[in-house]
Amino acid sequence: MTKLNSEQDFLTLIDEYFPSENGHVTLGRGDDCSILRTDKDLCISKDLFLEDVHFRRSYFSPADIGYKSLAVNISDIAAMGGQPCGFALGLIIPPSLENEFWEPFFESMSALAEQHGLILAGGDLSGGQYLGVSVTVWGEAAGGRFLSRGNAQPGDVLFLHGPAGMARTGLLSLEESGVESTKLYSESVQAHLRPPMRVAVGIKLAQSPHVKGLMDLSDGLARDLPRFLGCCDGDVGAEISLPESQLHEEIIRYAENKAISAVEHAFLGGEDYALFGAASADGFVELKAAIPGLHPIGTITGDNKILLNGKEYTAGGFDHFSK
Amino acid sequence: MTKLNSEQDFLTLIDEYFPSENGHVTLGRGDDCSILRTDKDLCISKDLFLEDVHFRRSYFSPADIGYKSLAVNISDIAAMGGQPCGFALGLIIPPSLENEFWEPFFESMSALAEQHGLILAGGDLSGGQYLGVSVTVWGEAAGGRFLSRGNAQPGDVLFLHGPAGMARTGLLSLEESGVESTKLYSESVQAHLRPPMRVAVGIKLAQSPHVKGLMDLSDGLARDLPRFLGCCDGDVGAEISLPESQLHEEIIRYAENKAISAVEHAFLGGEDYALFGAASADGFVELKAAIPGLHPIGTITGDNKILLNGKEYTAGGFDHFSK
Repeated sequence: MTKLNSEQDFLTLIDEYFPSENGHVTLGRGDDCSILRTDKDLCISKDLFLEDVHFRRSYFSPADIGYKSLAVNISDIAAMGGQPCGFALGLIIPPSLENEFWEPFFESMSALAEQHGLILAGGDLSGGQYLGVSVTVWGEAAGGRFLSRGNAQPGDVLFLHGPAGMARTGLLSLEESGVESTKLYSESVQAHLRPPMRVAVGIKLAQSPHVKGLMDLSDGLARDLPRFLGCCDGDVGAEISLPESQLHEEIIRYAENKAISAVEHAFLGGEDYALFGAASADGFVELKAAIPGLHPIGTITGDNKILLNGKEYTAGGFDHFSK
Repeated sequence: MTKLNSEQDFLTLIDEYFPSENGHVTLGRGDDCSILRTDKDLCISKDLFLEDVHFRRSYFSPADIGYKSLAVNISDIAAMGGQPCGFALGLIIPPSLENEFWEPFFESMSALAEQHGLILAGGDLSGGQYLGVSVTVWGEAAGGRFLSRGNAQPGDVLFLHGPAGMARTGLLSLEESGVESTKLYSESVQAHLRPPMRVAVGIKLAQSPHVKGLMDLSDGLARDLPRFLGCCDGDVGAEISLPESQLHEEIIRYAENKAISAVEHAFLGGEDYALFGAASADGFVELKAAIPGLHPIGTITGDNKILLNGKEYTAGGFDHFSK
């Protein structure tokens, strides 16, 4: 195990895991800035991943933290239909954190970066009271264009690629029972700790002229759907069809145990990082045939309401800032 | 005073202070990513600015925090000889922080952004135990090239634009006496709270073929000089001339009060964000005439030593990770 007694030790360790050059940079880490090679537009995003806010060390392994802190950022690029190119990494390091934390953390993060071809292009290290990971990620329009949230119209199909409610089931059961919950809700726990990235699907969606808009479900359908609709022109609403029969067995079982509605639980969701978007009704048939796992979950309507399985839905999702 | 009870309230407040469109983005805030318009290379940098690590709220006003958290990032672009274009902002917001904090914070940050033509292109908000500001900034090579740290050779002149040791004097006196220290060390305190940005100087330096390399002094000459030399080819060292007669009166007075060496105090420095670089000896005469405030502080030598006023210097600067 490498000793990590200085900033230089950290930088050396980081160099062991992350290459400093690839086609995406003309100047890598170690200077005031990195220099990105680009002859076209970039999309860029930034997400914080903080101890006891976004993760707990009691049930996130160092490798899980390394994975998810980068994954949630990659998902933002996937949600644009982009190909991630690189990222900058800020680490807030509490003095009490054991050195053994870092190798599995970097190993996991670098494996994900390598899988998607991302270069680590600089960043910042700092002491602090709580562990924190701050990632800025950027990508290119590999599908010929970026997909933003707006542009949907009444009649368009709303679609989903990935689950709704799995990660929430995992989160709540982990909060209640810690790692023990893996026994009862293994797939949901995995969905919370290691959400899969949908970069290739995002690029395919960007390549299709039928797709109107796209986002990733980070805060749950209940909260993200109004954001998606808010970017559309004029007064639009949505009818969502989320029949209990289509929900994962673990979601249904969890809801039964808690005597709550499985459908509302799935609709609240959060941190699934499923891709959610809109396509023209005509084009969706072709799209669905071309992209395995893509399924319709509703339609855009011409009024201002959100209907969930025929009932109006008004409550909001989770808000970090509610007092 | 706006109520800040939800994430949306924060986003609304941010919209009041920062325009969401300018020539630098084709898609502004509010989506998964922003889209940067660029047809050339970008330089990018990321710096954390954390409560009780990089600043204390006892002597940093909200406006000071808003200014400096962005300024230290802009300085990284200036240190590349770049023109800053935009930034992404991550805020870690403790629940106990009063709402009144944010308007002066954003006002000050947005004024600095406007002054330098930066667009705020996205970011992230999160709760947390301590106030933190995470900025990622990017810029273009307005001087025709970016200036990295390396490429200096024996015989080259080392130069400085800005002070060495002022911000350290301010920091130490603020830590000892809080805002009272403003009475004794007003300019040093100002240098610590509001370091000036040297973007125009950096661009002029990038335009000159005589300049070999450039960086900003964020951790002090003692620590940053070896980093600068480390990027040069082969075994190089430096002779630094920092006569006490050229130091600011406040630095000399502080050192006298503490019975320490004013020269070593200035050499340790830290957070001055002065520009420090190397130029060919022949070309420096021309450079000095063209850029007011640029002054020589030494030369690159062919051996591995650092001499400060003729004496070998070996001790390191401040290291956040020393245990």
